[in-house]
Amino acid sequence: MTGQISVIGLGPGDPRYLTPEAKMALEAADAIYGYGPYLDRVPARPGQRRHASDNREERARADMALQHAASGARVAVVSGGDPGVFAMAAAVCEAIEAGPESWRSLDVTIIPGVTAMLAVAARIGAPLGHDFCAISLSDNLKPWDLVVRRLNVAAEAGFVIALYNAVSKARPWQFGQAIENLRRALPPSTPVIFGHAVGRADERVTVTTLDDAGSQQADMATLVIIGSRETRVIARPGRSPLVYTPRAVAEVSA
Amino acid sequence: MTGQISVIGLGPGDPRYLTPEAKMALEAADAIYGYGPYLDRVPARPGQRRHASDNREERARADMALQHAASGARVAVVSGGDPGVFAMAAAVCEAIEAGPESWRSLDVTIIPGVTAMLAVAARIGAPLGHDFCAISLSDNLKPWDLVVRRLNVAAEAGFVIALYNAVSKARPWQFGQAIENLRRALPPSTPVIFGHAVGRADERVTVTTLDDAGSQQADMATLVIIGSRETRVIARPGRSPLVYTPRAVAEVSA
Repeated sequence: MTGQISVIGLGPGDPRYLTPEAKMALEAADAIYGYGPYLDRVPARPGQRRHASDNREERARADMALQHAASGARVAVVSGGDPGVFAMAAAVCEAIEAGPESWRSLDVTIIPGVTAMLAVAARIGAPLGHDFCAISLSDNLKPWDLVVRRLNVAAEAGFVIALYNAVSKARPWQFGQAIENLRRALPPSTPVIFGHAVGRADERVTVTTLDDAGSQQADMATLVIIGSRETRVIARPGRSPLVYTPRAVAEVSA
Repeated sequence: MTGQISVIGLGPGDPRYLTPEAKMALEAADAIYGYGPYLDRVPARPGQRRHASDNREERARADMALQHAASGARVAVVSGGDPGVFAMAAAVCEAIEAGPESWRSLDVTIIPGVTAMLAVAARIGAPLGHDFCAISLSDNLKPWDLVVRRLNVAAEAGFVIALYNAVSKARPWQFGQAIENLRRALPPSTPVIFGHAVGRADERVTVTTLDDAGSQQADMATLVIIGSRETRVIARPGRSPLVYTPRAVAEVSA
């Protein structure tokens, strides 16, 4: 029997975001691999084995899951959000390329999900309504100079910027530096959105300006969206503001 | 009674992508507004009214839906994919900002969905596994010079590029020009993915190179992903290749 591996996006936390496709794939799996808190979101099924590992062990987890699948099992690997955005799908592909030839014969399925930036954007309006980019702020996997260069060109060219991995215990200063850089490229009034744990019980979404944004507003569970020069805030009486980026740009503003 | 408007992402076509949250919001609506082919995906419910309009009438559709909601109804507006990505959520926000003050009191909910680039990426591996951007190639809403500038800076800075609205009947030459520009910034062997109608019966995903990419491979239902210098293709015996962008960049390559 040919082994199967599916890499499944769970969406941003609550079961209301889990697609029927992802649900079916989870139910069909003989074993599930993932970061512990993600595994905890998946309802238990008798006979289905679970293999929890630490957040930073993506490549080792991919190797283990592929080895298991190569024995003929149906193996699932789970990611929060979408598995293709700074998550397990790339780790599994890296492992297949570097691994034994037999892993290339496995049946590989990637199952997309609602990634964090879409969920945060939806909570506040439509900040990603025009051209945008997604940048991981982690310099574990790329030089910090490259992160800064990408932030600068994206801001100058008018992209809205979604920042993944903005802050972690091991990376306390990077987000502050990123904001400082962006202040040179964008007006102080540029809207900045902090989306903490969107889709979970402790969800908290706040809107501030680039001038007022600071590291203390972000933690490991926060996705940050930095507006462009075009991004607007609509005040609403008795309701939270709507933040959106218009579909049209009349003139080149930078 | 306060009127309600929800802007709902249907995902990439098949019901297996529709989140439970979106399904519930569709069922609760008194009336649904949208582009005809998107409305056709929503199962009919007795007593629920439908208002189909043309693809290019986003703003007029938003105005009508808001006016209807302001009368106290529960109104839904549907988008394919995610409503926040080049779709109806920004159009609704624009309409609220420009419309009567009373529209600011409406209960507005945006319900995210799996956007096309995530679905196409999932079909082929993990091309969006590293920093990436999403650009609408339509110059109906921004100057073509700005599109070209964004393509160039994104490619040079190492972003993978997802192109929405690559081709339409009214815009036949833009995609060819975009590819020509990108050939100056990226190697000829850069992987290019054409994802046609992903999630629908006529789905077709092909992988080629920047050198071989051409307008004839794209139509109105095609999302295109242009790799970065880091994007890799894994050949697999008897299976389609996997295309992915590694999570790590060792050195600044541009």
